[in-house]
Amino acid sequence: MKNLKLTTIKVKNQARTLVKVKDITIGEGFTVIAGPCSIESEEQAIETAIRVKEAGADILRGGAFKPRTSPYAFQGLGIKGLQILEKAGKESGLPVVTEVLDPRDVSWVCEYVDILQVGTRNMQNFSLLKEVGKAGKPVLLKRGMFSTLSEWLSCAEYVLAEGNPNVILCERGIRTFESYTRNTLDLAIVPSIKEVSHLPVIVDPSHGTGRLSLVERMCLASIAAGADGVMVEVHRNPAEALCDGDQSLSPPMFMSMMKKVRKLQECMVEINALDRESSK
Amino acid sequence: MKNLKLTTIKVKNQARTLVKVKDITIGEGFTVIAGPCSIESEEQAIETAIRVKEAGADILRGGAFKPRTSPYAFQGLGIKGLQILEKAGKESGLPVVTEVLDPRDVSWVCEYVDILQVGTRNMQNFSLLKEVGKAGKPVLLKRGMFSTLSEWLSCAEYVLAEGNPNVILCERGIRTFESYTRNTLDLAIVPSIKEVSHLPVIVDPSHGTGRLSLVERMCLASIAAGADGVMVEVHRNPAEALCDGDQSLSPPMFMSMMKKVRKLQECMVEINALDRESSK
Amino acid sequence: MKNLKLTTIKVKNQARTLVKVKDITIGEGFTVIAGPCSIESEEQAIETAIRVKEAGADILRGGAFKPRTSPYAFQGLGIKGLQILEKAGKESGLPVVTEVLDPRDVSWVCEYVDILQVGTRNMQNFSLLKEVGKAGKPVLLKRGMFSTLSEWLSCAEYVLAEGNPNVILCERGIRTFESYTRNTLDLAIVPSIKEVSHLPVIVDPSHGTGRLSLVERMCLASIAAGADGVMVEVHRNPAEALCDGDQSLSPPMFMSMMKKVRKLQECMVEINALDRESSK
Amino acid sequence: MKNLKLTTIKVKNQARTLVKVKDITIGEGFTVIAGPCSIESEEQAIETAIRVKEAGADILRGGAFKPRTSPYAFQGLGIKGLQILEKAGKESGLPVVTEVLDPRDVSWVCEYVDILQVGTRNMQNFSLLKEVGKAGKPVLLKRGMFSTLSEWLSCAEYVLAEGNPNVILCERGIRTFESYTRNTLDLAIVPSIKEVSHLPVIVDPSHGTGRLSLVERMCLASIAAGADGVMVEVHRNPAEALCDGDQSLSPPMFMSMMKKVRKLQECMVEINALDRESSK
Repeated sequence: MKNLKLTTIKVKNQARTLVKVKDITIGEGFTVIAGPCSIESEEQAIETAIRVKEAGADILRGGAFKPRTSPYAFQGLGIKGLQILEKAGKESGLPVVTEVLDPRDVSWVCEYVDILQVGTRNMQNFSLLKEVGKAGKPVLLKRGMFSTLSEWLSCAEYVLAEGNPNVILCERGIRTFESYTRNTLDLAIVPSIKEVSHLPVIVDPSHGTGRLSLVERMCLASIAAGADGVMVEVHRNPAEALCDGDQSLSPPMFMSMMKKVRKLQECMVEINALDRESSK
Repeated sequence: MKNLKLTTIKVKNQARTLVKVKDITIGEGFTVIAGPCSIESEEQAIETAIRVKEAGADILRGGAFKPRTSPYAFQGLGIKGLQILEKAGKESGLPVVTEVLDPRDVSWVCEYVDILQVGTRNMQNFSLLKEVGKAGKPVLLKRGMFSTLSEWLSCAEYVLAEGNPNVILCERGIRTFESYTRNTLDLAIVPSIKEVSHLPVIVDPSHGTGRLSLVERMCLASIAAGADGVMVEVHRNPAEALCDGDQSLSPPMFMSMMKKVRKLQECMVEINALDRESSK
Repeated sequence: MKNLKLTTIKVKNQARTLVKVKDITIGEGFTVIAGPCSIESEEQAIETAIRVKEAGADILRGGAFKPRTSPYAFQGLGIKGLQILEKAGKESGLPVVTEVLDPRDVSWVCEYVDILQVGTRNMQNFSLLKEVGKAGKPVLLKRGMFSTLSEWLSCAEYVLAEGNPNVILCERGIRTFESYTRNTLDLAIVPSIKEVSHLPVIVDPSHGTGRLSLVERMCLASIAAGADGVMVEVHRNPAEALCDGDQSLSPPMFMSMMKKVRKLQECMVEINALDRESSK
Repeated sequence: MKNLKLTTIKVKNQARTLVKVKDITIGEGFTVIAGPCSIESEEQAIETAIRVKEAGADILRGGAFKPRTSPYAFQGLGIKGLQILEKAGKESGLPVVTEVLDPRDVSWVCEYVDILQVGTRNMQNFSLLKEVGKAGKPVLLKRGMFSTLSEWLSCAEYVLAEGNPNVILCERGIRTFESYTRNTLDLAIVPSIKEVSHLPVIVDPSHGTGRLSLVERMCLASIAAGADGVMVEVHRNPAEALCDGDQSLSPPMFMSMMKKVRKLQECMVEINALDRESSK
């Protein structure tokens, strides 16, 4: 990691990066990003947005461009999706994040959203990384499903090297031989990142497990592991979702999870305080 | 998993297996197993045992037979190690667990210890599994570093099929391309096991990460993930350890970790109670 | 693979795709693509081109845009590299292939080269796939280092769905835990592809092993496995290469390898003929 | 690999290990081991033995103890299987190899067979390795499905350290995310072993691919990769096999494959001779 001039910790007690998005600060407390895998309609997006906001979410997610394995699968609503997402953000009062796939789309997508997401398949799409680096908006950089910690930080370095310090790393599971879960969520990467980098790191247990029944538990485990937040898929009616319905929470499930998340977050504040006491 | 007659959940609300070892019940509360990687001397073992007991450990671990990659590496003290381990258990008042490698050793090793451990390299050593199944002692079955959930449960099935219901599963990390950590700790396997099996499951963050600095965080994450316990390596002087010194906690580090473990455990009791309330 | 309408074999004895590039036909005989990892200077490119041509290579490779893990590593000469590559092709009489990274570059890069390469990191860069599909030039599609056969063919499907049937698949090794080699070359994928798809498939043993000493052997193994060709890195002076010098053959090594390649190719023609005889 | 005193090459042009079994020398020419996954009956074993001998096999394989994932699957005929295997060897004139699972069985199994096989699940069963080391019979050591080259050689070192130099390494595929094949056959390990070790290495394409249709191709690729032999599953009637029927060749398929194997072997002798010529 010797070439990672900007993303790694260079001096003891170096300040950690805080990414500010409207009145939310990622890297302080525990930030919850929630919303549908893809924007399907205005009604769906706005209803989901309002319900995740009520449950305590901090940021709204929603895909307008979907990277799909098959060229014949639903590819997202594109610009119409972005317009809906922007509206859902306004109606709910939540900042919004969406994935961008193509370097040609970066500048105009910025007009609709607060955070640009670079997905797992594009982690090493260097043209895209440079473009989001230049755009200046905060970037949520997902870990490649095949990437080491060092390669992941190198991709963040591409963004920082363009003058954009606002990168949020997002662990979303790596590919292994285990098939019970869709991916293997690597929670040890969270404290590993804290050791070597000052960037905030969040966890996506929806893609990380691919199983609805495991999402809540892995959210809680992420808090205990020291993550700065989570990103979870919530759909007002998962059975009807055009994408990733198997791993999307319903609004009541999300509401129930959030009670536990906030309670555990409080507890972790006390637990983390034990370190400061003992080091006095 | 259709052939797993004994290890999987067959009826709704099936009682979970509780494994009783002296006055400890694995599967109730959160059980902490601690101790050195290998028994090196009476002094080392007893001092470590007393100090982990003081810090709140429930069970003492210690290796007398070490499976080593190289035939020229320290292979453990053998029977002398078992005698010391037994003594350390008595002096500290802790039940003891040790790894057994050879089916020929099972019956006599049982005279010294309370729990038999089958290691990751022997998960599919079917002769050994049958022998520990017949021995009747509780068995701590580590996950093979290359094994799926289904294969792991099949190995537990070998033990149960011999009439021994007392199996504790232990996640210890799987092998992936990531090299920052020694293995990739698969915490999502914990709630996955809870879905399909009634057996208790604990986590070994020492081997699971191979990095001292990550052990505490991954213990906490294990609690939040719903594990029934952890197994951690503690050495009275890690710098002098003959084996795995890089991932062993010192007694003060373990003491500090245990305060957090117990506090988080209490918090999780409250959080888990929210489910029961909401289902009333 | 049910959704792969265009890339999979749909009827018995379906004709295999032949990709014609000038007077070379990929899918007939055994095609050898050779050249430097990256174009560094006119002198280097032309000398290497002439020497690989003399040794019997069919197509010249050379990178003008290099996808590099670090933003601070040599990124290629860009348009100047393409101009040199075109000239080296003309002087040696070889068609040329180069990697394209950005959808914005596709149309103008086509003016300089005969085949467009999509690299392993961009296998699922769907914007790029659509663009090379529209461009009409033959596409050499490398397997993602993390991708299954099914996912790989889905990416080829993106290109074919744009009306471009001229896709050449290229196995280049997958990422595993084994670290003696840079990647694990999956030669069984070659006959696997022949079972399910009509597309030609070649092998890249340079990236597939990352070790100079293994390249020749894995070329020979590729022929026996039924591959339609190989792509190997050759540099006039590997010790001075700006990129991948460790895995580049020198011209004399390449010359020596080519004698064996052509001899084995002849032998395989006879061996494959045994099948036709026996099925008479 | 610094601790591998006995298995690695220590001086330039060090003689390669030749393992003699009756009139067969493994490490010279190309040795073909063939036979059923498991011994099922005298009739099945003898018929298969005679037919593989007629086709040109050198050694007969057959399992009497089968390591099975499920405790309820067919576990082999045990001693009766060994008696049948011995008889089939005599009737066909082929030396025999069988897998041994338990250190307690090693000494008496030696009375029936010419080569002891240690399977992939037992590669790191150190008790078993020591026992086969002491037994003195040649040992066919399969690569663990999760093991690096260095770990594999360390296991061979356990056998050599007991005074038994006759170890044959057998690549049988490693576990990866790819699921089209049962395992990923790592053919680059063959020339890798030749670089660092003097031990002979063979390839098992039956387990390595798990697909009948790929076995022949991967046998041919193994020859070109420089392997000293192959081990393939042949059953007189694959559809009726109790074990691994999906990957077993029928005798006519094996006969057809052997013609190609012997032809390619001759060709490789000429190709390898090119090196000697050029180094004159």
